[in-house]
Amino acid sequence: MKTTVLSVHTGARRAVFDLTSEVTGFLSSVGADDGLVNVFIPHATAGVAIIEVGAGSDIDLIDAIDVILPRDERWRHRHGSPGHGADHVLPGLIAPSISIPVVGGNMSLGTWQSVVLVDPNSDNEVRSVRLSFLRG
Amino acid sequence: MKTTVLSVHTGARRAVFDLTSEVTGFLSSVGADDGLVNVFIPHATAGVAIIEVGAGSDIDLIDAIDVILPRDERWRHRHGSPGHGADHVLPGLIAPSISIPVVGGNMSLGTWQSVVLVDPNSDNEVRSVRLSFLRG
Amino acid sequence: MKTTVLSVHTGARRAVFDLTSEVTGFLSSVGADDGLVNVFIPHATAGVAIIEVGAGSDIDLIDAIDVILPRDERWRHRHGSPGHGADHVLPGLIAPSISIPVVGGNMSLGTWQSVVLVDPNSDNEVRSVRLSFLRG
Repeated sequence: MKTTVLSVHTGARRAVFDLTSEVTGFLSSVGADDGLVNVFIPHATAGVAIIEVGAGSDIDLIDAIDVILPRDERWRHRHGSPGHGADHVLPGLIAPSISIPVVGGNMSLGTWQSVVLVDPNSDNEVRSVRLSFLRG
Repeated sequence: MKTTVLSVHTGARRAVFDLTSEVTGFLSSVGADDGLVNVFIPHATAGVAIIEVGAGSDIDLIDAIDVILPRDERWRHRHGSPGHGADHVLPGLIAPSISIPVVGGNMSLGTWQSVVLVDPNSDNEVRSVRLSFLRG
Repeated sequence: MKTTVLSVHTGARRAVFDLTSEVTGFLSSVGADDGLVNVFIPHATAGVAIIEVGAGSDIDLIDAIDVILPRDERWRHRHGSPGHGADHVLPGLIAPSISIPVVGGNMSLGTWQSVVLVDPNSDNEVRSVRLSFLRG
């Protein structure tokens, strides 16, 4: 298996970060042909998703998370900044692992799909992302 | 890797569409033995899930989505029909990729599990679904 | 593919059950090196997640599910105990399948990540969990 770990600078922004070009570059660098690429986030307060970016849906997703998992005092997990307990529930709903078919060296994404890191946690400046290619 | 793309006629219905027999047929046609089958939806407004169908839970899932992601004016993404911004957030919660173990040529699903396309978007008549078998 | 099925005694507790040591033991027993391990739950009322356990987030996740999918009379699926229809929608949001990269025989989990069975359904005493290792 070809595998590597990226560092993504997320700063204090609560946002979605597009990883598509990093995954594409990884597949090219390992000479991928046909198989599955797995994107894995080794953190307990972030997830990975495939959504459209650039037309507002990335911000819509963060806003939706804040309604679904309110940043208030309800959480048993109380470390970190206020409402941070919500970040620890997030990976239950937006998992830290997703696999994408690779055909002829390219991810078989639809036109409007991007692979994104979902990171509503402002406490971590840098995130790791593991990319792994399994030949089919 | 054995891979193919299905066309699923979803019409204007906002619903869940059972793909189980299509995946079973694909595995048979490629002579699958042991491995993983990945079901991938190359669209930005649909997802894939494994749920029970036939006792109402398929409609319950669509209704739950409409409560979790209300079809109102809150969304920044404003293309398409009213509330369509919600459809673009859906794949963040119901991912467009799932993998199922295949043992002896058959998916190792539980008795009540079906593989379904989740498509609450009424604007697309036909959806593509990519099936890929990775031999283990 | 190396694959096995575990039995997990969940009793009547509505809870999250840590599977990390079981997955680690499986990888060791099959002599895994590099690849993907898939954790699959062959049940229609449970899911699998990767979250932190031990600081309250496991209970927070169950509480969040009960807000997102209320255990009331809204569900079309009406078998089982009151509110059980919610359990049947759960796998739409917390999928029954997740894959984790394996490097040098070990899951490449982050420090605070555990692999957990999410089982808010009190009607099933024992759950099956299928573990599968695909060499990369």
